[in-house]
Amino acid sequence: MLIVMKADAAQEDINRVCDLVRDMGLTPHAMPGPSRLAIGITGNTEPIDPDRLSILPGVIEVIRVTRPYKLTSRDMKPDNTVLTIAGVELGGRDIVVIAGPCAVESREQMVETAQRLKELGAHMLRGGAFKPRTSPYAFQGLGRKGLEILAEARAATGLPIVTEALSTDEIDLVAEVADVIQIGARNMQNYALLKRAGQCGKPVLLKRGMAATFEEFLLAAEYIMSEGNHKVILCERGIRTFSDYSRFTLDLSVVPELKRISHLPVVVDPSHAAGRRDIVIPLARAAIAAGADGLMVEAHPDPNQALSDGPQTLSLEMFDELMEELRMIVPAVKRNSLPTL
Amino acid sequence: MLIVMKADAAQEDINRVCDLVRDMGLTPHAMPGPSRLAIGITGNTEPIDPDRLSILPGVIEVIRVTRPYKLTSRDMKPDNTVLTIAGVELGGRDIVVIAGPCAVESREQMVETAQRLKELGAHMLRGGAFKPRTSPYAFQGLGRKGLEILAEARAATGLPIVTEALSTDEIDLVAEVADVIQIGARNMQNYALLKRAGQCGKPVLLKRGMAATFEEFLLAAEYIMSEGNHKVILCERGIRTFSDYSRFTLDLSVVPELKRISHLPVVVDPSHAAGRRDIVIPLARAAIAAGADGLMVEAHPDPNQALSDGPQTLSLEMFDELMEELRMIVPAVKRNSLPTL
Amino acid sequence: MLIVMKADAAQEDINRVCDLVRDMGLTPHAMPGPSRLAIGITGNTEPIDPDRLSILPGVIEVIRVTRPYKLTSRDMKPDNTVLTIAGVELGGRDIVVIAGPCAVESREQMVETAQRLKELGAHMLRGGAFKPRTSPYAFQGLGRKGLEILAEARAATGLPIVTEALSTDEIDLVAEVADVIQIGARNMQNYALLKRAGQCGKPVLLKRGMAATFEEFLLAAEYIMSEGNHKVILCERGIRTFSDYSRFTLDLSVVPELKRISHLPVVVDPSHAAGRRDIVIPLARAAIAAGADGLMVEAHPDPNQALSDGPQTLSLEMFDELMEELRMIVPAVKRNSLPTL
Amino acid sequence: MLIVMKADAAQEDINRVCDLVRDMGLTPHAMPGPSRLAIGITGNTEPIDPDRLSILPGVIEVIRVTRPYKLTSRDMKPDNTVLTIAGVELGGRDIVVIAGPCAVESREQMVETAQRLKELGAHMLRGGAFKPRTSPYAFQGLGRKGLEILAEARAATGLPIVTEALSTDEIDLVAEVADVIQIGARNMQNYALLKRAGQCGKPVLLKRGMAATFEEFLLAAEYIMSEGNHKVILCERGIRTFSDYSRFTLDLSVVPELKRISHLPVVVDPSHAAGRRDIVIPLARAAIAAGADGLMVEAHPDPNQALSDGPQTLSLEMFDELMEELRMIVPAVKRNSLPTL
Repeated sequence: MLIVMKADAAQEDINRVCDLVRDMGLTPHAMPGPSRLAIGITGNTEPIDPDRLSILPGVIEVIRVTRPYKLTSRDMKPDNTVLTIAGVELGGRDIVVIAGPCAVESREQMVETAQRLKELGAHMLRGGAFKPRTSPYAFQGLGRKGLEILAEARAATGLPIVTEALSTDEIDLVAEVADVIQIGARNMQNYALLKRAGQCGKPVLLKRGMAATFEEFLLAAEYIMSEGNHKVILCERGIRTFSDYSRFTLDLSVVPELKRISHLPVVVDPSHAAGRRDIVIPLARAAIAAGADGLMVEAHPDPNQALSDGPQTLSLEMFDELMEELRMIVPAVKRNSLPTL
Repeated sequence: MLIVMKADAAQEDINRVCDLVRDMGLTPHAMPGPSRLAIGITGNTEPIDPDRLSILPGVIEVIRVTRPYKLTSRDMKPDNTVLTIAGVELGGRDIVVIAGPCAVESREQMVETAQRLKELGAHMLRGGAFKPRTSPYAFQGLGRKGLEILAEARAATGLPIVTEALSTDEIDLVAEVADVIQIGARNMQNYALLKRAGQCGKPVLLKRGMAATFEEFLLAAEYIMSEGNHKVILCERGIRTFSDYSRFTLDLSVVPELKRISHLPVVVDPSHAAGRRDIVIPLARAAIAAGADGLMVEAHPDPNQALSDGPQTLSLEMFDELMEELRMIVPAVKRNSLPTL
Repeated sequence: MLIVMKADAAQEDINRVCDLVRDMGLTPHAMPGPSRLAIGITGNTEPIDPDRLSILPGVIEVIRVTRPYKLTSRDMKPDNTVLTIAGVELGGRDIVVIAGPCAVESREQMVETAQRLKELGAHMLRGGAFKPRTSPYAFQGLGRKGLEILAEARAATGLPIVTEALSTDEIDLVAEVADVIQIGARNMQNYALLKRAGQCGKPVLLKRGMAATFEEFLLAAEYIMSEGNHKVILCERGIRTFSDYSRFTLDLSVVPELKRISHLPVVVDPSHAAGRRDIVIPLARAAIAAGADGLMVEAHPDPNQALSDGPQTLSLEMFDELMEELRMIVPAVKRNSLPTL
Repeated sequence: MLIVMKADAAQEDINRVCDLVRDMGLTPHAMPGPSRLAIGITGNTEPIDPDRLSILPGVIEVIRVTRPYKLTSRDMKPDNTVLTIAGVELGGRDIVVIAGPCAVESREQMVETAQRLKELGAHMLRGGAFKPRTSPYAFQGLGRKGLEILAEARAATGLPIVTEALSTDEIDLVAEVADVIQIGARNMQNYALLKRAGQCGKPVLLKRGMAATFEEFLLAAEYIMSEGNHKVILCERGIRTFSDYSRFTLDLSVVPELKRISHLPVVVDPSHAAGRRDIVIPLARAAIAAGADGLMVEAHPDPNQALSDGPQTLSLEMFDELMEELRMIVPAVKRNSLPTL
């Protein structure tokens, strides 16, 4: 930790800072410069709130050197975390594709879609039983009934299920059926939900909040891990920017940076970022080329009839085309060819 | 609703759109232009999902004319909503100041602070018993014990209490003590929490999410109101932008726009936007000058010892100065002088 | 300057950094911490490019302690810069209002408008002869003819003229007529133009770029000042964010921060930020309440007939109302009442 | 064009709008809805400023249906523009890689680098003689001398030259040497420079401004084309967002959208977006996977000694690795293998 003092800080201001640092059990090191004095601090500064120091008279700035996340970091666990979910390895050498409709709509739709997606090469099935909707007047999902349908689709195909829990009220219900519990972007800082996800034992796919910094994203994962659940999957799904021709701006730079700093698997959801079907396939290719461990895409046999997110949902023909193109990109990122079930 | 067709749309594309519109019980009006055709739609288009139309062949864009929020809108209720909370009127001609420490720390701190703030002119008392923290390793609040302390502070001063509920697990507990339940920025789209807030009967202060658009903000309020609770207070607290010298960018333009579109009271929290004490007072003055109905500011007898948010917390001397300056601004916005208790 | 080393940096990496620092004529100070080593650097680090160090093996981060701007800073000049422009003092105790139409349209319009605005209390006259337009097909201004008209309006009223120069090709022409040369937001990093503005001797009103950080804004002013022209006025006019109901997001926090760090006068342009007339007056009041030295607003006798920016332009009746309200706010910010000519 | 009226608009308001529309030589079509009236307009609405209508009493909103850009649009020219620059085809089936140091530093450095890059497969050479720098105190480039060196590097290798012009003062000088004139992100709305670039006859590589919307980007290209120069290359280089771990956020969604709306070639600069060497290669792969026609990357034989942008500059070994990986991605986007000179 480094404390930068004002050019005109009085000696008593400097002494006050050094005294407080010593009171905290740490060691201050005065470093005079040509125009200002800086005070380096050694010792275990992790529990120190920099704000305690930044508000003292004469202080311009307190610079924290260590990072606030721990369990998510490669400093703590240098090797990749590889999750095995119903036989599918995520975070290792395989590229994993999670596909399915935005929302569970009916038994027929879901089972048939799951079968078709499996034939086309999907490794996991997504589908929302509980849907977060911006408007209270929009379709909110089938709820418990949707979960039952997802269980049937898994029974019929063997595909593991990824589905969202919206609140602590329903997470236990979701955990009974889901192979992976999804925490949505709007809930990335719903700390009660994160803690419960950390207690449920199931793998958790955590979507980046639309305004989450890199640090906030990892700290949200840290909430889950600090409850003892180390099976966390990080998912980039687009951030909110001024740019207005796509729904969100997919931030693919985050993929190599997450892989560098964290040992957790990283997947990308191009569907919600794009908001438009015609941009989904190029972004999906780009995500894999950028080094993601997998994708989550919306696909539906008849997107124009989908009850939600229709415009950004791929038809099965487009999904087939996507899988074909991914197979060609995989070697460039030194991955295995896509796994087959 | 207006459907814009591609320049080269085939007649059958146009017919398909018109047929679907008629199937929906609406009337299409073809409007040929020099380069493109547009199709106007009349009838009750509110329940129509524009996506059903935007994905048809030949369609470029579907433009929705009506707004998705209803109960929050002046279209529905032209007059200002004025809430009376333990004798304090919010949303009428008075300017209301909510003040207090970020977190409840101890009985002595809270009761004494409440007494001092009341003497200086504050109308409501804020203080967090349950605290949302970015890191799982930071102080999370006193919880139930904090609520008891807030109740004592109210008993001692008569000031109504504003305090945050973080999850559906604890909202009933919070509602027993709080005069106003706060929903924080990170929970603005925690729909389960919004619904429960809509059922609890207490006034709800809803903070704008750090990446929430105007429409999303009003729709979050709509979630609360659609459960039957019309006592909602909107609170601007800064949005996330590229700008890096303040914690968030306070978006004061939203104040007149919210007042224009909605009948709900609007307050501004300059403390969280600034993240720095020295900017709080200028922003507080500006918020009132922009037309806000009130302020929520952090104040503490010894900010440098505060357990959280110290750097952005006003000392009581600064709070006194702020109240003094506000009294001079109030006439310029044609409000009553500040109310006294 | 502080260099943070990786947890596993080899001793030779540390030595390499220290050697390079000594080669630069500076002194390295090793500061061991519990998990990492940091190296403090003392001596004159200003000319050092941190990138030279950040790319060495074993280095995580280089933190610059001193700020890159100098002439714009209060470190260099503690007292406010007060400019006297044709008798109007800007940056002192007066609040200065610059008003006028977006574009110069005709002799009659301009002279009459100037006379009316003067009667209503405006201190300077704005009007564009050269107009920056997003589309090449939009009205580009009257050019040289517009400058002549501005000179006539000044002759008729005594109001000093603020008008924009778009390029080095025309800045000398503009400087012949203008009392203050405006550099627009889109040209804030047009360095050739900034340098020429720094050589022209006239006061320069520099608008913040729509994506400019605080540091970039001051460095743009530094370009002008480093050419010897210290008469610079900083103007906040809104930044580009995701928020979509106003044209830009007016960042009023920047006002107290600019006043704290820099000695230069600060004005605010609420018209371009709002993009809508009905938000201009609340934002103008807020800007003064936040501590700005002045305002620049668009006003026109018949805004609905204005050739550009009509929707954000105040009528003269609205301008009169604004001046009335400002007079009430001025005492709250401890300023003189508005100056009269 | 569509005009949406307020729910309570008076008949005289509606008549006023219709009359003005007819005065403009257009035809109004009243479209009554359940709660509001909309007025469709047909005829040639392109020259109409929507602001003329939006400010009339009773009007809520004016919605423009046609797009403001023309020459850049596929509506005007459905086929891809393919530029042939010293034998290199850009915008066709080949993927083109432009590489070189940020700044021209010396004859030896430039000629040797050019030779090495050519051997490794680069198709064009980049290098700045005039450098835009945020601080007036940073290295500003070798200027005219730098252009001479670039000409020598071309003579030695046959690689065409891409170099930046910063102002109208020097563009003719740059045009004498450059095969492609670069307009930087900070100058994307420097309209005087765009017009002169449109008159110079040389191909122009136009970088997207850091806060430019899709429409503004194409309108900047439109400025160049409207002067008669149709040889424009669009370059995405990252936008400014809240995200702080990369210098800018590379917006790869823009690639398929630009290719869909415009016929112009699209290249991506991952170096400036990343600001960090270790992210450049993943982003470069992603850009090609997203459908870009080419890349512009910074490469230098000894990046740690580079006079500017060292941290984001690839070594030649990294550049070699990048080219190897690109060769594997090219088939997935149905392009030819990379061209060889």
